[in-house]
Amino acid sequence: MTDQNNPTSPSGGRGASLDVCLTPALIPLYNVQDYIVVVIDIFRATSSICYGIENGAEAIIPVSEVEECAAYREKGLNYLIAAERDGKVVDGFDFGNSPFSYTAEKVSGKTVVLTTTNGTHALHLSRSAKKIVIGSFLNLTALCNWLKTQQENILLVCAGWKNNFNLEDTLFAGAVIEQLKDTGFILDDPAIAANDLFRIGKQDIAQYLSKTSHGERLKKLGIEKDIAFCLQVDLTTAIPVLDGEKLVKLV
Amino acid sequence: MTDQNNPTSPSGGRGASLDVCLTPALIPLYNVQDYIVVVIDIFRATSSICYGIENGAEAIIPVSEVEECAAYREKGLNYLIAAERDGKVVDGFDFGNSPFSYTAEKVSGKTVVLTTTNGTHALHLSRSAKKIVIGSFLNLTALCNWLKTQQENILLVCAGWKNNFNLEDTLFAGAVIEQLKDTGFILDDPAIAANDLFRIGKQDIAQYLSKTSHGERLKKLGIEKDIAFCLQVDLTTAIPVLDGEKLVKLV
Repeated sequence: MTDQNNPTSPSGGRGASLDVCLTPALIPLYNVQDYIVVVIDIFRATSSICYGIENGAEAIIPVSEVEECAAYREKGLNYLIAAERDGKVVDGFDFGNSPFSYTAEKVSGKTVVLTTTNGTHALHLSRSAKKIVIGSFLNLTALCNWLKTQQENILLVCAGWKNNFNLEDTLFAGAVIEQLKDTGFILDDPAIAANDLFRIGKQDIAQYLSKTSHGERLKKLGIEKDIAFCLQVDLTTAIPVLDGEKLVKLV
Repeated sequence: MTDQNNPTSPSGGRGASLDVCLTPALIPLYNVQDYIVVVIDIFRATSSICYGIENGAEAIIPVSEVEECAAYREKGLNYLIAAERDGKVVDGFDFGNSPFSYTAEKVSGKTVVLTTTNGTHALHLSRSAKKIVIGSFLNLTALCNWLKTQQENILLVCAGWKNNFNLEDTLFAGAVIEQLKDTGFILDDPAIAANDLFRIGKQDIAQYLSKTSHGERLKKLGIEKDIAFCLQVDLTTAIPVLDGEKLVKLV
């Protein structure tokens, strides 16, 4: 039994929906305005965003195009601009998409403009949500503890790869469900699947993901260290939240 | 190592792609013309189609709308028309979507026009494929044995539920992959996920699916017997193939 109609329900998700949108292409199937949305792009956008906000970045602005990012250069020295092509920092940019660029000494007090195709796409399509927050393994438990207090439907949006399903984002969605599922949420089929996949992979997520296409692709880019970094659990506690066009620390 | 460029490769999929399209909404992400497509709609369209073709139906024509189906009534007595709403046969139709309606005594020598929203949608979007065949647990091994001989890329298209992911179609895709994966196919991320989900559920697929939303929905329609029927493995050997607008027996 659930008490979906009881607004004074004491525990986190009792009767609310905990759904997983496996790719941005499927966002139109959800009434996004009825949800808190968590955007997930594990390799590497949302991991870098969590790390940057934890390390004192004033804000992070995700954009789709390198040109759009470059335009921020003219706004002043307080902006850092980040863009990569084929695993290399684009000429004239401050750094690429590696989370190792988002240390306190580099980003504290700054606004970082980050070029990320899949993540920006997912954010844009989720705009009508009640709230949009950013998730990664880095802030997993802090995020889940906050979600438990929200008494709202939750939609975990996997940024995926070129609008299609990927395993790393789905596994992270499954990790969130693992922490929330005993608090009374109703899971949709993708949520059940994501959680089961997480339970298969959780003993060694890096090993599990090494067989995937994206893992292969990232290895070829020579960013194995980034991958290992992005799979660290609970390194941070900040929850980035969308405020207008900027991601800032949720307070 | 794969020998993708060797057309004389002796084993089924060596170097070819074995991909899973988790919902019809994602079909546009694939170059469908490069694949043999298997359309999957376990509860109940593709199970009923496999059973009907096995039992001697001359052809099965899947359509989206009840009205479209009804129009076939005027084409003569050789046509049987099948449509359901809310689990009940629509007035004036010969039968509904239960596989139990597709027995030899009812369908042998007849053409059945079947109303199925999700399955028809998946078929329509796959039209440009090299070939389109129909899969269900009923014809699993016969289908896989044929696929092994084809030396082509294979795309398993899950009809899903209202354009979104469902577990039963994905599990069946995983069952196909289980039989094909050691013959040298390259799997995409959805294929890896589908196979892992099948491996979780395979000991008792009915039990595994009972926790899903669609399972609940179907139970409410009072068609538990249909569900059990659709989960029988290798009851049939016929492979339905699309020929124009009709599904006929592959010979």
